[in-house]
This record gives sequence, C-alpha cells and structure tokens, in this order.
Amino acid sequence: MSEIVKVAVDAMGGDNAPVEIIKGAVDAVNLRDNILVYLVGTQEVLDTELAKYSYPKDRITTVASTEVIETAEPPVMAIRRKKDSSIVVGLNLVKDGTCDAFVSAGSSGAILVGGTFIVGRIKGVERAPLAPVIPTAKGVSLLIDCGANVDARPDHLVQFAKMGSIYMENVIGVKNPRVAILNIGAEEDKGNALVKETFPLLKACPDINFTGSIEARDIAEGAADVIVCEAFAGNVALKMYEGVGKVLLSELKNGLMSSFRGKLGGLLIKPVLKKSMKKYVASEYGGAPLLGLKGLVVKTHGSATHKEVTTSIIQCVSFKEEKINEKIRDRITIKE
Amino acid sequence: MSEIVKVAVDAMGGDNAPVEIIKGAVDAVNLRDNILVYLVGTQEVLDTELAKYSYPKDRITTVASTEVIETAEPPVMAIRRKKDSSIVVGLNLVKDGTCDAFVSAGSSGAILVGGTFIVGRIKGVERAPLAPVIPTAKGVSLLIDCGANVDARPDHLVQFAKMGSIYMENVIGVKNPRVAILNIGAEEDKGNALVKETFPLLKACPDINFTGSIEARDIAEGAADVIVCEAFAGNVALKMYEGVGKVLLSELKNGLMSSFRGKLGGLLIKPVLKKSMKKYVASEYGGAPLLGLKGLVVKTHGSATHKEVTTSIIQCVSFKEEKINEKIRDRITIKE
Repeated sequence: MSEIVKVAVDAMGGDNAPVEIIKGAVDAVNLRDNILVYLVGTQEVLDTELAKYSYPKDRITTVASTEVIETAEPPVMAIRRKKDSSIVVGLNLVKDGTCDAFVSAGSSGAILVGGTFIVGRIKGVERAPLAPVIPTAKGVSLLIDCGANVDARPDHLVQFAKMGSIYMENVIGVKNPRVAILNIGAEEDKGNALVKETFPLLKACPDINFTGSIEARDIAEGAADVIVCEAFAGNVALKMYEGVGKVLLSELKNGLMSSFRGKLGGLLIKPVLKKSMKKYVASEYGGAPLLGLKGLVVKTHGSATHKEVTTSIIQCVSFKEEKINEKIRDRITIKE
Repeated sequence: MSEIVKVAVDAMGGDNAPVEIIKGAVDAVNLRDNILVYLVGTQEVLDTELAKYSYPKDRITTVASTEVIETAEPPVMAIRRKKDSSIVVGLNLVKDGTCDAFVSAGSSGAILVGGTFIVGRIKGVERAPLAPVIPTAKGVSLLIDCGANVDARPDHLVQFAKMGSIYMENVIGVKNPRVAILNIGAEEDKGNALVKETFPLLKACPDINFTGSIEARDIAEGAADVIVCEAFAGNVALKMYEGVGKVLLSELKNGLMSSFRGKLGGLLIKPVLKKSMKKYVASEYGGAPLLGLKGLVVKTHGSATHKEVTTSIIQCVSFKEEKINEKIRDRITIKE
C-alpha cells in the first residue's frame, strides 16, 4: 500500500458546511484506503453528521473546535482572535506535523493569512500564491496567483512560475509545462510596469519553459499550462471565467425552456451537454493549492459540494507522493 | 431631419478589411439618412469595392491614403512615421473638424495613441479610456478602461467613473447608472493599493451613483452599469469574457455534432440557441468609444464584419446628438 496521507478538513467552512463537507470526507476515506481524515468542527455537529454514514471508523478522527470564522470577518484579526476556530485548529494540525494537509471551503482571506502565519512559508519562498487549476479546451491550466496578496514584485512572479511548473509537471502530469505571463498584448513591449520588468527575468530562467505573453482571451483555449500573474489580475481572470460560464449556461437553459421545441431539443441534447460541459464544472478539479508553504493548504470553492471536497482531499495524495514541497525547496534554494 | 453626422471610416484596418468595412459603411448610409461617411484608404481599393454596391453617392466621400499601420507595429512610432496611413488621415479628419467621429478596426495601440496625440483630450481630461459596452444577463454594462494606457492613478479612475456614467445615461439610456469599482472582494478594505485609494474618492463623488466594489464573477450577471477599472485589469476581464464565451460555445457545438441524437437535438434548439446567444455577439454592440477626446474615436473588434462596422458608425449619431463631449467637458471642469 502507498504511504498514508493525513488530511485535516474544515467541517465548518463554506456555504454547504457541515453536511456536504462531512459527506465529502466520508467519501474520500471510502474511496482511497491511504487517506486519514482529521475532521475539525463543533463536536456535536461532527458526531451527528458522521452517524449518518458507514465508513472505516479508524480513518476519520474528530477534532473539536468551538469557533467559526465567517467570510466577512477581517482575516488577520480573525486568525489572531479565534484561536479555537476550525481554520486555526486545522492549520495547527499541519504546523505541528499531525497532518500533511488542510482542506477548507471557508473564508479565503483567513485561509491565506493563516496558511502563511501558522503553517509558514518554505525557506526562500517570498509569497505563497493561490493556484487554481482551471479547465481549458485542451485540458487544464494553472492560474498562479489568484490570492489576496496583491501588488506583487517581479521576483515573486518568477517564484510563482517555478512553483507552478513543478505543480503542473508532477501533480497534473504535464511534461515541460509552457509558462506564460498574463498580459494585454502578445508583444514583449506590451504591459504594465510589473509585466515589463518580469518578462526578461522569466525569459532568462533556465529551469522553466517560458513561452512569452498570453492574452486573457487565449486562456480558455489552453494556450499555456502555467499562467503567471499578479493576484489582482489573476483573481479578475478566474472570477470572470466562473461568472461568464455561469451566465452563458443559464441563458442557454432559459432559452431551451421558453418553447416546446426548445424543451424537446433540450431533452435530446441533455447527455451531450452534460458531457461537454462536465469538464467546466468545479467539482471535477477540487480546490486551489496555496503553494510554497511548509505543508499543503487547499482552498476549495465556498460553494463546494461533497464531490469537490472529496476531490480536494484526494488531490493531497499526489501532492505528498510527488514530494512537491521538497521540489519547491530545492528549486527555490538553488536559484536564490 | 436630424443633424448630419460625419464619420471617417478606416477602410484598411482589421482582419476583414477592406471588403467588410466598406460593406458596413455602405449599409450605414443606406440605413440612416443623417450619416455621411468619409471612407479612408487606398483609392483603387475604395473605388473597386464601392462599385459593387448601390447607395446614395453623395453620402460616401473617398479620402485617399497610401499607407497602412499593421497590428504588430509599435504604435507611437507608427503614428509618427506613417503620416499618410488610413488611421492618421482619418484621425486628422476629426482633428480639423471635417468629421465628428472616426471608426477603425485597425491596430488598437495606434488608435489609442493617435486618438490622444492627434485628436487630443478635452481640457481637464487626464486620460482617454477605452470603454467597450459588454452584454450581461440584464442588458449591457460599460467596462472602463480596457485600453493600453495601464497603471492609472486614482484621479484617473474618478474621471472614468464620471465619463462612463455620462455615456451610459445618454447613449445607452440607463437612468442613474450604478457605478462599481472592479475589485477582488466585496468589502471596502479589499483590493490593491490603487483600488483602496480610489474607493473613498468615488464614495465622495456627489455626481455619480457609486455602489461599491464588484467582483469579476458578477459582471456578466449585470451587477453594475459602469465598471471602473485600471486598463490592465479591464483588458484581462474583457478578453477573458470573449475567450470563455467562444470556447464554451464551440465545446457545445462539438458536443452536438458528436452523435446522431446530439445532431437532431441541435437542429431543434438552433433557433433558441441563436436567439439566446444573440446578445452575446459582438456585432450587436459595435465598437468601444475612446472617451474624453475632442472628437469621437471608436475602436471596433479586429475581427469585425460589416454588421459590427455598421453598428459602430450608427453609434456615432447618438454620441453627437446627446452632446456627450460637451457633457464630459462640463462635468470634468466643474469638479477640477
């Protein structure tokens, strides 16, 4: 059997907590026998929910916490004050080595701040970027950084490019991933001050496959495997992707429901629609890793259902097996 | 009859020039009897193309130019050197008062640079933003700035908010338009340095209807009428919108063609699909105005076909009729 991976799961975070989160954790241990889950939350809630399922009891440990960090709370304050929140307790399980990873659908800000403050960055890593895997026409790409840590410097972006390459190559399995910098034109002289400064640094990196600029219009086509960007622009790109996808699909559905002919056609195309749109559904991809920390911290969508939670937990296995953090440490240290 | 509007049209710019551009110009004068077109391009090309159509001859004037600015040329250099290019000649027609507006599907960079250098900004306007109208689930919104003039200051963004409000209210007809600033979270303390500095300035503006931050995910839903942003982020949002829409529709089409059942369903839903997706097609909206100049400059998509060119030309009528530039001058001057 492969190595055991221990994952702390925040049972209290996200729109569908605790029901969907706990179901997702149960499914994960039922699907993979090398996963141990440490479920963090209000003891009574955990007990009530877990009683609904059948699963190997020795593979889910409950860890009691008494507080919950709400999405609207200022992150730094929340992490400092709510020492017994599910996020802080879960992150501490990674910090003290009890767990390899922490998965949460809770407050992005608190997870990002807590990840850096509690788990801590790998030596040499200056910023821990949030790097979601997004679906494209050709497969998937990594958008790095989409976090809350805006106004990055060029050397941060160079580290993102390296960490992103390691992740895509070893966790997603893309050989020699194409790295591009998010820009507003294809030419080298285009862009804002940050992009213009970063471009030659990336071009000079011997250990990444830098292919130049990428315009946002070519992201969904799959024109690069790792898209390096400052967090504000990355966040805009990511959320635009989600928003446009949602609106277009809902317009299509409304259109189909507006006439008999549409309804009939809709019934016929349902399996095809489901199949071709499946890859654009968040649950298939799990959460976004926060790269460069001393443990793995994964942020799943606030709207995550059990399926995405399960995928996010299982994702932690290849992260550990492929020794991503060791690889990041080696690569960053060599180049500093 | 309403006032005559004179529009210079770049017959040589864009992927489908000259054929589609010239057809679009002919359609515009055939559709509206208050439009005069000044068609700028290689004389021989203009003559050959125009000979194909029937239209009131006195409503299209040809203006010979001998050079063409290519998309890949560095804009500043191109505008300076190619004095007899269709873009420079067309912009000069606006500068010298021969025309009210200039429409081009050519190099964005050259149009933006030329618009500012040749036509010039209205007194008090610090930057001329490119402001495309984008389709949403509720109608349309204005995304301002999506241009090439990146790294804006907070006072630039305040001017964008004012100019955008005037355009939405008077050209698009949205009463008291909701103005939001593009951000990575809904809370006032979220964002990069620029957004944090701009937020209170917008909040303090008595002459706009500022509603706070908007996340990119809510743009397609139509959560604001005027979305104020720095050009880099705006460009990313706009191009992401275009790219995701294109990929999702093509995935859907491929899916439908992959089975007999899909093909049959596809035939049934075709009218519905066409109708519900029609609003997301660029040709319905025409080009993006470059606001704050002493004349109107409109940039249409590089891939514009005749229909979008026609829409872009017709758009110039309400811009002139509603005296947008006079309104911008008044509003900016009062507040400076």
